[in-house]
Amino acid sequence: MSILIKNPKVLIYNDDAPRGRYFTIEEKDVAICGDSILYVGEPDDDDIAGTPCISPSNQAAAFKPDIVIDGTNRLVIPGLINAHTHNYMTLFRNLADDVPFAQWLFDGVMPHEDRMLPEDAYWGAMLGIMELLRSGTTCFNDMHMHIHQTTKAAVDSGIRALIGRGISNTEGRSGLERRLREVSEEIERWSGSPLLSFTIAPHAPYTCDKEGLRVCMAEAERRGLRLHIHLSESRQETADMRGRCGMTPIAYAESIGLFDLPVIVAHAVQAEPDDIRILAEHDVSVVTNPASNMKLGNGFAPVPEMLMAGVNVAIGTDGAASNNGLNLFREMNLLSLIHKGSHENAVALSAQETLKIATVNGAKALGLNTGRIAAGCKADLAVLSLDRPQMRPFNNIISGLAYAANGSEVETVIVNGEIVVKDGHCIKIDEERVYFEAANRLR
Amino acid sequence: MSILIKNPKVLIYNDDAPRGRYFTIEEKDVAICGDSILYVGEPDDDDIAGTPCISPSNQAAAFKPDIVIDGTNRLVIPGLINAHTHNYMTLFRNLADDVPFAQWLFDGVMPHEDRMLPEDAYWGAMLGIMELLRSGTTCFNDMHMHIHQTTKAAVDSGIRALIGRGISNTEGRSGLERRLREVSEEIERWSGSPLLSFTIAPHAPYTCDKEGLRVCMAEAERRGLRLHIHLSESRQETADMRGRCGMTPIAYAESIGLFDLPVIVAHAVQAEPDDIRILAEHDVSVVTNPASNMKLGNGFAPVPEMLMAGVNVAIGTDGAASNNGLNLFREMNLLSLIHKGSHENAVALSAQETLKIATVNGAKALGLNTGRIAAGCKADLAVLSLDRPQMRPFNNIISGLAYAANGSEVETVIVNGEIVVKDGHCIKIDEERVYFEAANRLR
Repeated sequence: MSILIKNPKVLIYNDDAPRGRYFTIEEKDVAICGDSILYVGEPDDDDIAGTPCISPSNQAAAFKPDIVIDGTNRLVIPGLINAHTHNYMTLFRNLADDVPFAQWLFDGVMPHEDRMLPEDAYWGAMLGIMELLRSGTTCFNDMHMHIHQTTKAAVDSGIRALIGRGISNTEGRSGLERRLREVSEEIERWSGSPLLSFTIAPHAPYTCDKEGLRVCMAEAERRGLRLHIHLSESRQETADMRGRCGMTPIAYAESIGLFDLPVIVAHAVQAEPDDIRILAEHDVSVVTNPASNMKLGNGFAPVPEMLMAGVNVAIGTDGAASNNGLNLFREMNLLSLIHKGSHENAVALSAQETLKIATVNGAKALGLNTGRIAAGCKADLAVLSLDRPQMRPFNNIISGLAYAANGSEVETVIVNGEIVVKDGHCIKIDEERVYFEAANRLR
Repeated sequence: MSILIKNPKVLIYNDDAPRGRYFTIEEKDVAICGDSILYVGEPDDDDIAGTPCISPSNQAAAFKPDIVIDGTNRLVIPGLINAHTHNYMTLFRNLADDVPFAQWLFDGVMPHEDRMLPEDAYWGAMLGIMELLRSGTTCFNDMHMHIHQTTKAAVDSGIRALIGRGISNTEGRSGLERRLREVSEEIERWSGSPLLSFTIAPHAPYTCDKEGLRVCMAEAERRGLRLHIHLSESRQETADMRGRCGMTPIAYAESIGLFDLPVIVAHAVQAEPDDIRILAEHDVSVVTNPASNMKLGNGFAPVPEMLMAGVNVAIGTDGAASNNGLNLFREMNLLSLIHKGSHENAVALSAQETLKIATVNGAKALGLNTGRIAAGCKADLAVLSLDRPQMRPFNNIISGLAYAANGSEVETVIVNGEIVVKDGHCIKIDEERVYFEAANRLR
């Protein structure tokens, strides 16, 4: 399949631009051939017809679009990257709000999770993916149980995903091994899928001890996979870890060699200056989850400080049970505002940094060739209508994206070169059925 | 005109409910007759046909709808109330972001305001109203220059509005009197309009001195109008006022008798415990503007503390130049999250309190018989589609409204009994023309 988006505005990332001026808005044609962006060029440039494009539907050497999308008053952006979530928990949305963390977890979430059937997880994940795709997110990084269902939902919907099985050894070695086997099975089952990658995902140091973490590290190294772990989410966790081993969770992770492998760290809300130095030294990617951290009363992660130290910060929604949505436009707006508010500094985190966090940094964290509109990148992108009051006038479209858009502007979403959202609806998903199936599954 | 919304879910406010349990979701029919809600009753209740309804289009005694709206999988909520904004500044959206306050005001906003023509203000206000209406807001409380244009835009669009002319006496008494004359002229011009009210709006104690404030107070008292003023927005303002008269701005306002009249105070970010006591004692309504206060680096207003002290807290977006949107769904989500985050307390501000702030408290602040779906109230309401991924499943629709909705769920908006938004579009506004006119007006 080849697609031409004709004459839109395009959010372009400039690799060598100075700090804080990464993006520009340019009027370009965007040509997609197969799974990749072939060309981002001047409208009506003759070169575009001459650029070689070989794909199953286009055996000729020259680019000839099967589909042309009118870009007038539209904006093409890289698909946003949700770098930490628990997708099937969308079933638990709004279930336990305005309650302390322990009540949220032990009364609100866990009793329902205990009673979940695999098919519940499938429909919960599908509902979450609908929300992600329709608000311009083209990739999510998931950690939880029921990975077969989450994986199947991702494949069925056409979204890109990194899948990790949350791993603990609170039940001993056999539980840990069973969970690692689940991962192996999924990796084999989907070895040919272009949309899927896998992580090894020890839940946290307080649920997966040193022996368990070492098994996970060995498995990640053997398979060449990233690790995905929760670290330093709450003050309680940090205090407990200090009491047990005299270190912060991040210092502890460093001490056992965890950061010698590629790691995606969720939260780091309680990261202290020494922790930030450790994260930067080891090139660890941190995923900040602003709504979740506030909702559960954990506070504000030191994001401006981590960026200043050179840490690669990405963004996530966490699960819908602790958010309550999966909309990265809202999350970007939150991220920038809360750091301006908590630092009492209007320049603490700019629109440019925020957009980079949700695109380029997310792709780096997850090891993907996505997150930008550039020739040679995988074609993961969203087309937004600018015919919305919140997007007018065009004084600064980059600010508008980070601070005024709410995700409902998304008309078309393309993942790996394939159209998956058209006119705001997921075309590979029976949306009515998802609403029906997601209802009344809590027991 | 009479309208029946058949079989929707309805957000009902229960006057005598205990703190934090104000709202319930109920399946009711909602009947509107003329400008008011006639009946909120059981579906298919025979009584509804027998309830007297006299309106221009319905001279018979019994309710007979001219229009029936299918409420299936829809939710009726009171129209949200934006209790502090500067609507024509929507023209300046995204104009000066990620810069300190002084640069925002003196380089970003003021040079453009100086060069504005009245018709610029009209189209800016119209664009803002489009965004308000389409995201479920049925009333705004405005303070600024160009009130004739803002008022005309409100009337043309069908939204309800309180209009205040920002008043200062930095140019001396004549400037103040000219501005008060503008208010008088508007009040006379629109004396018959059911949608409009007016306020006397001294800008702030640092731009309108004691003499000016006393003139404003006398004018408000003479006309029986509310005062609308900015107070305690920034640390700088509070420090300056302390330096000048040894009092906080709120203590100063009390000392000159300002709070002996009905007053709407915008911001109160820097309100101290004694200030909060003063606000509560005088039954002052405070409008919190969370996004604006963060964006400009002013921090977080003590909203949970004010609520606890019994202050009536409403919510506003401030102008789009300091937000960058006018969407109260986003503002509600922000409000609840930032206080949970900054207090590190997951119960700091609940969905119930947040929804009350945006509806019932807003109506009280502005002196309106709106803000609830109940017989006898003015018919200002929004109908939301629940066929959106972010609104599913229905575990807790009240949480969903405050924490997951983004405003794009709004299909129908009714103000004063008249449909003004249908299928998500403003039917009294030529939306394409507004986009066209709002472009390229900055000089």
